[in-house]
Amino acid sequence: MKHNFGAGPCILPQEVFKQASHGVLNFNNTGLSILEISHRAPEFVAVMDEAISLVKELLNVPEGYSVLFLQGGASLQFAMTAYNLLPEDKKAVFLETGVWAKKAFAEANLIGNAEVIASSKDKNYSYIPKDYTVNADSAYFHCTSNNTIYGTQMHSFPQTPVGKVCDMSSDIFSRVINVADFDLIYAGAQKNIGPAGATVVIVKDEILGKSGRKIPSMLDYQKQIDAVSMYNTPPVFSVYTAMLNLRWLKAKGGVAEIEKENNEKAKALYAEIDRNPLFKGTAAVEDRSKMSVCFVMENPDLEKPFLKFAEEKGCVGIKGHRSVGGFRASLYNALPITSVHALVEAMQEFAEKNV
Amino acid sequence: MKHNFGAGPCILPQEVFKQASHGVLNFNNTGLSILEISHRAPEFVAVMDEAISLVKELLNVPEGYSVLFLQGGASLQFAMTAYNLLPEDKKAVFLETGVWAKKAFAEANLIGNAEVIASSKDKNYSYIPKDYTVNADSAYFHCTSNNTIYGTQMHSFPQTPVGKVCDMSSDIFSRVINVADFDLIYAGAQKNIGPAGATVVIVKDEILGKSGRKIPSMLDYQKQIDAVSMYNTPPVFSVYTAMLNLRWLKAKGGVAEIEKENNEKAKALYAEIDRNPLFKGTAAVEDRSKMSVCFVMENPDLEKPFLKFAEEKGCVGIKGHRSVGGFRASLYNALPITSVHALVEAMQEFAEKNV
Repeated sequence: MKHNFGAGPCILPQEVFKQASHGVLNFNNTGLSILEISHRAPEFVAVMDEAISLVKELLNVPEGYSVLFLQGGASLQFAMTAYNLLPEDKKAVFLETGVWAKKAFAEANLIGNAEVIASSKDKNYSYIPKDYTVNADSAYFHCTSNNTIYGTQMHSFPQTPVGKVCDMSSDIFSRVINVADFDLIYAGAQKNIGPAGATVVIVKDEILGKSGRKIPSMLDYQKQIDAVSMYNTPPVFSVYTAMLNLRWLKAKGGVAEIEKENNEKAKALYAEIDRNPLFKGTAAVEDRSKMSVCFVMENPDLEKPFLKFAEEKGCVGIKGHRSVGGFRASLYNALPITSVHALVEAMQEFAEKNV
Repeated sequence: MKHNFGAGPCILPQEVFKQASHGVLNFNNTGLSILEISHRAPEFVAVMDEAISLVKELLNVPEGYSVLFLQGGASLQFAMTAYNLLPEDKKAVFLETGVWAKKAFAEANLIGNAEVIASSKDKNYSYIPKDYTVNADSAYFHCTSNNTIYGTQMHSFPQTPVGKVCDMSSDIFSRVINVADFDLIYAGAQKNIGPAGATVVIVKDEILGKSGRKIPSMLDYQKQIDAVSMYNTPPVFSVYTAMLNLRWLKAKGGVAEIEKENNEKAKALYAEIDRNPLFKGTAAVEDRSKMSVCFVMENPDLEKPFLKFAEEKGCVGIKGHRSVGGFRASLYNALPITSVHALVEAMQEFAEKNV
């Protein structure tokens, strides 16, 4: 039994793996693989429709918003949002909370005019800046809801005089959000949605068609909306498996239910980090992420031995990103609380042996 | 037993489906799914490296070329090629042989200056134009090697005074090509490469860095080369399954061997189309595609009954595209010749019943 704390591509429910595996051999008892049917076939159109409907249902997406399944990950969205939403004569403003926020800014700034209005770079992105003002003549405000590398998360979003664009790649579907608070939300699939290779976008229809830019067709939200995410051949397997995973989430009781579990998981792990004298968290307490728990050891010499010890106990994927060091335990939706208990026990056992 | 003549996403070898299905449950006996391991893990880096190596080996890619696995399909390449290869002060020239060639032109023309120098639109794209001149001051010459909808294929490529860019989405790996004849080749994976969601690019390194355009990072070939196709999270399952499929092709003897089989398959089907008085081919004989065989019936009223009859015989996916009508049988690498025989027999039986 492995406890997969990997940051992504990451754990999905075992039953989703089983269903997806079966679909590769025999999709819906058609005698054909999900990989060999046309994306225009009624069977696949139904998959795409259900995937889109499940996003709408699970996130309670209001009228006037469209849901897309695209390709290219969040990194392509960095450019795509600017092409579609940033006019030549306006400026997009960015909250810089880590590497991904920085990259999103850089791409927008390549295409048009963008500015970082607040950053936590001064303390290695260990907190979420709260003291900043968004000018009313900005094109939009961009933020990253969860910062996997630094273990911070926005537990609330600022009131802004312009529309909010949010990269929710690593915490979408992990907690209840109010979609109406945002003009556009995007997320690479490979955390709580499904396999890498798909990207979910939720966009308020009325904001489109106003950037005045020439937009390549594949990067034009309106064209993708008109084509119901099939402007060209979609990543069929990723969409199919995302649909299976969203079905699993719905059967579990939806986002509100999984949020309770996620709260329990985070609470258990942070409690041990705070209690155990060998460990300490790296993020500001009030901004601690419930998805990406980053911690180090008081004695850095013990980090390698602990990593090995934890792996022997089946806890894999906990090595921290090089820019923070130490450990990062990702607690995505599909990770059972028993895996968190296994890690906590490993921390306790290791502490007993190293007093 | 189904005979899958679908145009794409299309048939792959049964053993590839089996291996891919197994990898979704337990990848390389790691106890983890291919969907839940990090793309930075040595196990996945090895998959990407092998996929790239197999492309190089199977197509005999010369020194000085890079191979990429990207996202977005050929449709994103339509824009990406223009961003990377088309300077402001030059013109890209296009051979218009069908819908995809037309779209490739339109995207390049949106980004810069492009011109169609020859077209077969006058005869519903039923042939490949041969009488045209490429000016030496063009940025590049773009062509589409195989036209799925119209059933034509370029059996040779023109000598041009500028570099050739070719969309080989529907016939790459089906026949021996001389990569050195091209500056850039691209192909959506979902025909002879692997599942939808990946795109292969083969590019001559020395042509890059000269367009003078601002290029979004995800669309910058050089950045993708520098990152070995992992500028961001790649479509792991699509790359993995493509690698399995290319292994299968190598084990079969490679491209030269599969080309012989493909020739046999096309020969058998065209022979029946030409022999059977009920059917006729739609493409000019000298330009007939060996991958996409398009045909209609002399009596259009018999087309629906034949479609039904063929399906009863297990032949699926043969309905022609609406812009040509009739039938289209795609004879991709993984389609066994026995499937072609099944279709030929269905045509013969149907003819006997409808004399």
